[in-house]
Amino acid sequence: MEQRISLITLGVADVGRARAFYERLGWHGQEVEETVFFQAGGLALILWGSAKLAGDVGLQEREAGGFGGVALAHNVRSRAEVDTVLSAAAGAGAEITQPARETFYGGYAGYFLDPDGHAWEVAWNPGFTLGPDGSITLPDFGTP
Amino acid sequence: MEQRISLITLGVADVGRARAFYERLGWHGQEVEETVFFQAGGLALILWGSAKLAGDVGLQEREAGGFGGVALAHNVRSRAEVDTVLSAAAGAGAEITQPARETFYGGYAGYFLDPDGHAWEVAWNPGFTLGPDGSITLPDFGTP
Repeated sequence: MEQRISLITLGVADVGRARAFYERLGWHGQEVEETVFFQAGGLALILWGSAKLAGDVGLQEREAGGFGGVALAHNVRSRAEVDTVLSAAAGAGAEITQPARETFYGGYAGYFLDPDGHAWEVAWNPGFTLGPDGSITLPDFGTP
Repeated sequence: MEQRISLITLGVADVGRARAFYERLGWHGQEVEETVFFQAGGLALILWGSAKLAGDVGLQEREAGGFGGVALAHNVRSRAEVDTVLSAAAGAGAEITQPARETFYGGYAGYFLDPDGHAWEVAWNPGFTLGPDGSITLPDFGTP
């Protein structure tokens, strides 16, 4: 299995509501058969009905509420941009679960939840290099 | 907010167990302070203790079991490769929740769960272009 990820699919209660949230944040998607596709660098973020997605995976839906076990992160180029993006998310209707604060690794970050409770960190991490296209390159931590 | 994702963090019960699973699949990570980082194209996949991650997000952990609401996908270049990767995952200890089958979009795909129940689809989708580096490019669906 190659070391890469092609798609991230978020289960949502209402595809239209979820799409509208991401479009308020400035994203542009395409909708096909009640599924919304966003190109995001070398992968795609997809919004799909959570019951359909659970059925596709072959599992029952879990009770909603609380943390689902996965967090996405959007890293930015400056500390100030963390505040800007979190404000934009709040303005688009996101719940801020963690206001921006200094992090133990010398950065600055906070979290918001999208309308379906999917967690997004907005982070400035001076140790992680962001390319012109937004791709991230991990440092050599010097550890195995 | 730019249309991109920097990190995907999976909450795990045991970082060593989770890391060993991904390394059995051929991935190579680096561990720093009980956190494992895998470079995956232009983003990073991270394994971190689920209680720490939930605390960082600012939420309570949800009861385990069932579908957590997010699925990752690993798209491959041929139908046969779907079977190869799902077999490798099963050999590495994954639970196969959906054996490979024809999909409604003319592809072939199945799902496995990692040791913490995170869902991975392994998919061959002839409509999605995979670049030499494994990056995926969505087609123009011709829809808004």
